[in-house]
Amino acid sequence: MRILGIDPGYAIVGYGIIDYNGGSFSVVSHGAITTAADEEFPKRLKAIYDDLTFLINKYKPECMSVERLYFNTNTTTAIDVAQARGVIILAAENSEITVNEYTPLQVKQSVTGYGRAEKNQVMEMVKSLLKLKTVPKPDDTADALALAICHAHYSASTYSRIYMGAKR
Amino acid sequence: MRILGIDPGYAIVGYGIIDYNGGSFSVVSHGAITTAADEEFPKRLKAIYDDLTFLINKYKPECMSVERLYFNTNTTTAIDVAQARGVIILAAENSEITVNEYTPLQVKQSVTGYGRAEKNQVMEMVKSLLKLKTVPKPDDTADALALAICHAHYSASTYSRIYMGAKR
Repeated sequence: MRILGIDPGYAIVGYGIIDYNGGSFSVVSHGAITTAADEEFPKRLKAIYDDLTFLINKYKPECMSVERLYFNTNTTTAIDVAQARGVIILAAENSEITVNEYTPLQVKQSVTGYGRAEKNQVMEMVKSLLKLKTVPKPDDTADALALAICHAHYSASTYSRIYMGAKR
Repeated sequence: MRILGIDPGYAIVGYGIIDYNGGSFSVVSHGAITTAADEEFPKRLKAIYDDLTFLINKYKPECMSVERLYFNTNTTTAIDVAQARGVIILAAENSEITVNEYTPLQVKQSVTGYGRAEKNQVMEMVKSLLKLKTVPKPDDTADALALAICHAHYSASTYSRIYMGAKR
C-alpha cells in the first residue's frame, strides 16, 4: 500500500510518500512544497494544488493521510491553513485517491505507542521505522511521514478486524 | 464591470453575479450551490469547485468578491467553511479572475451606508439597488449579492481617486 502523508500549511506543506507491505516500510519520496510569503494568496493556493497534483500523478499513492486541524491560538494563520487544507483535499479528490485524517494524538500514539510523546520522540521513531540516516527536515516533512505511518498502522488494524469479523 | 459575489460555506455557497456600469446595477444571475450533508467532505469540496468553475465559465465575471472569515464560536464549522473558501479561491485563480475580500463591516457600510446596519436593512438595500421584487432567498444568496455590490462601490471609489490624482 502506497500512502501520501501530508502536514497541511500554506507556507510549507510537508509531504511523505511511503510503501507499507507485510508490516515493513520503505520511503518513496519526501519533501516540502513551499510558497513565497510575497506571493498573492490565491496564487499560493494554486501552487499547492498544482504541485500536489503533480506528486500524486508521479508517485500514484492509493490514499492520503492528512492531519486534522484544531484551532486555538492564532486564528488568522489557522484560517489560512484551513483554506490550504481545503485545496489539498480537493487535489486528492480530483485525483481519485481517498482522504484519511488523524488527530495529532492518534499520530503520536500510532508512531510511538504513546499519545503524550514529545515531538523529538516522534521524529526519532519516524527515522527508525523508515530506516533513515537522519530525521528528515523540515519538521513538516517528518510530520508528513508520521501521518503516513499512522495511516499504515490504522489500515492494518482495520483490515485484521474486518478479517476477524469475517471468520465468525 | 461584471462581479461575482460569494458568501462562502460548505453546505450552502451563495452566489450573485451583477453588472455595474455607469453607477447602475443589473443582476445577471444569483442562487446557491448546495452540497448534501451525507456526502463525504472531499466530494462536497469537489462539487463546490466544479459548480463554481461552471458558473465562472458561463457568466465570465471579471472578478470575485468574497467575505473575509473571522472565527469566534463554532470552530469545527469554521474550519470546514475555511476549507471550502480555499477551494472557492482556487476556482477563481484557476479561471484567472481576481479575488477581492471584504469584512462584514465593509459590506454593511458599503451597501447601507451604516456599518452597524441590521441584517434585514442590508437585505432590503440589496433588493432596492438591484431592483428586485423580493429579497433573494436563501440569505446566502442575498449576502453574495451584497458582496458584489460592495466590490462595485469600492472599485468605483478607487477609480475616481486614481482619476482625480491623474488630473493634478
